[in-house]
Amino acid sequence: MTETQKLINDGNRAVDEMLAGIAAAHPHHVARLDHAPRAIIARHGPRPGKVAIVVGGGSGHEPTFLGYVGKGLADACAVGNVFASPPPQPAVDAAMAVHGGAGVLFLYGNYAGDVMNFDMASELLEMEGIEARTVLTTDDVASAPAGERDKRRGVAGNVFIFKAAGAAADLMMPLDEVVRVAHHANARTYTMGVALSACSLPQTRRPNFDLPAGQMEIGMGIHGEPGVRRGPLLPANAVADEMLDAILAEMKADPGDEVAVLVNSLGATPLMELYILNARVAERLAAAGLKVHVTLVGPYCTSLEMAGASITLMHLDDELKRLLDHPCDCAMFRAG
Amino acid sequence: MTETQKLINDGNRAVDEMLAGIAAAHPHHVARLDHAPRAIIARHGPRPGKVAIVVGGGSGHEPTFLGYVGKGLADACAVGNVFASPPPQPAVDAAMAVHGGAGVLFLYGNYAGDVMNFDMASELLEMEGIEARTVLTTDDVASAPAGERDKRRGVAGNVFIFKAAGAAADLMMPLDEVVRVAHHANARTYTMGVALSACSLPQTRRPNFDLPAGQMEIGMGIHGEPGVRRGPLLPANAVADEMLDAILAEMKADPGDEVAVLVNSLGATPLMELYILNARVAERLAAAGLKVHVTLVGPYCTSLEMAGASITLMHLDDELKRLLDHPCDCAMFRAG
Repeated sequence: MTETQKLINDGNRAVDEMLAGIAAAHPHHVARLDHAPRAIIARHGPRPGKVAIVVGGGSGHEPTFLGYVGKGLADACAVGNVFASPPPQPAVDAAMAVHGGAGVLFLYGNYAGDVMNFDMASELLEMEGIEARTVLTTDDVASAPAGERDKRRGVAGNVFIFKAAGAAADLMMPLDEVVRVAHHANARTYTMGVALSACSLPQTRRPNFDLPAGQMEIGMGIHGEPGVRRGPLLPANAVADEMLDAILAEMKADPGDEVAVLVNSLGATPLMELYILNARVAERLAAAGLKVHVTLVGPYCTSLEMAGASITLMHLDDELKRLLDHPCDCAMFRAG
Repeated sequence: MTETQKLINDGNRAVDEMLAGIAAAHPHHVARLDHAPRAIIARHGPRPGKVAIVVGGGSGHEPTFLGYVGKGLADACAVGNVFASPPPQPAVDAAMAVHGGAGVLFLYGNYAGDVMNFDMASELLEMEGIEARTVLTTDDVASAPAGERDKRRGVAGNVFIFKAAGAAADLMMPLDEVVRVAHHANARTYTMGVALSACSLPQTRRPNFDLPAGQMEIGMGIHGEPGVRRGPLLPANAVADEMLDAILAEMKADPGDEVAVLVNSLGATPLMELYILNARVAERLAAAGLKVHVTLVGPYCTSLEMAGASITLMHLDDELKRLLDHPCDCAMFRAG
């Protein structure tokens, strides 16, 4: 097996060098904390009386998570190593730097390592007298049955969930309300992915799993977690249908309902293929009588250079529509 | 050689299906002409008395070209097949649909097929009594010596050149002035790329050139045109240095001068690697006493799923700074 070609210097320094490049590229949007270089905070956004939203997780999913730090969205991000949870301290440092006296919401994908570390961060914050709450995102339909939603992983749907919660906080809602919005947004968000190739960690440059040529894996997670079905690569429309069928069966939307759509690249899959998928998504939603309020297409939640894509639908109501439309301004994401 | 895995239906329908997906995703920003489905026009932007800017070229470089259609940037785009120039008619149809009586600027990369087809479009427009001018982008440093700038190809620097010209037109400058701005922006824009892998056309799913594992090619074009040097893949900093050395040697900037930076993915290379490159770019520019006015990092001008990256510098002056800062609103690009 040959090494994956990467434009890096040293796999062990890749995350810190990336963060240096981000700080250099986006000085008007984000800053690194001098005493905590793995904590990224928003230049604008945090303010007295506002609930602080701190997101985070492993690196390698850029622009998730740190790309969603900015005014109207997340206030800070704790950055882990590639595909590895950050330890508690960057989360604590991030929260201490951005909290406005109205409490902190830790908002991140449901992975055991992240839960353990952010829970420790919460305890450390409570010792400082800062109220900390947690909402886990669990939008990955393939990762557990519908009856066990709280066992599911958080994937690309993070974008919509972070956006809704970020807007709620920006609108100065109190902590209880921001937590309610985040739970509500998560409960109405559904993602299915498909992998066409493995990716490889900067440290090893070796594929993190084996997917034979000509095969795809439906439902694979963003760290290569096993999916629900492996088989020959089908045409884009059939792949979109299989992912949409799973989502729509659970979403139980009525004709006339509105949705937000995200067609996401896992890394190497280019815009052309994503828009081909979206053509089918739009066709299927129209056939189901569903109205598309907004569509995002591009690399929003990636797995390094993995080839593949995911489709996310958020089942909207008036509140979620208003929150998605609320302005935000991040280095790597804008809306409104 | 195995087939490249792609999420497409039929290679021959890929471009049209992509355009259907774009129209479905971005109805507030762009529209397709009923009588010319390969012409994409901006919903907002075109207006009486305004110079119309029409860009275009082969598909497969998304978001180049059609992603830069929108208010404050290009008014329309003529869309070719993958890596193939559009014929004259979509360019004529696009121009007819968006011109405001103040003339049309065709603005696109310097490739023989594009020049031939857009020149025919210009003649057809002139027969309709519409003044049409052309500015070719020639930012690819590796594609011809400095003394033969007009032989160079246009690549990722398009983003800055389109932006400057689009702002000039949005500010209601007359055609002569918009042409002057486009030439000026092009003359001050320099790009160098590096390829780490081939890409493959949707029709064939076979790599369009052969690059052995462990090798890189500096200066390769965005359709796989031969570069200036092939050799073992070096660490990111050495690659960035080699590309920057070529750019800075030509740019002849003085300490204190300002630049715009674009670190661009050719497709499969993820944000982590781009930001690692940018950390080095920022370091080198600081060492040269140059000030970074704005940095863009991401997939802006791609070659389907090719792995690799390019670095673009635009040598700014007060006029170019003002034009880059001018607001714009495209489906796939915003500024200001």
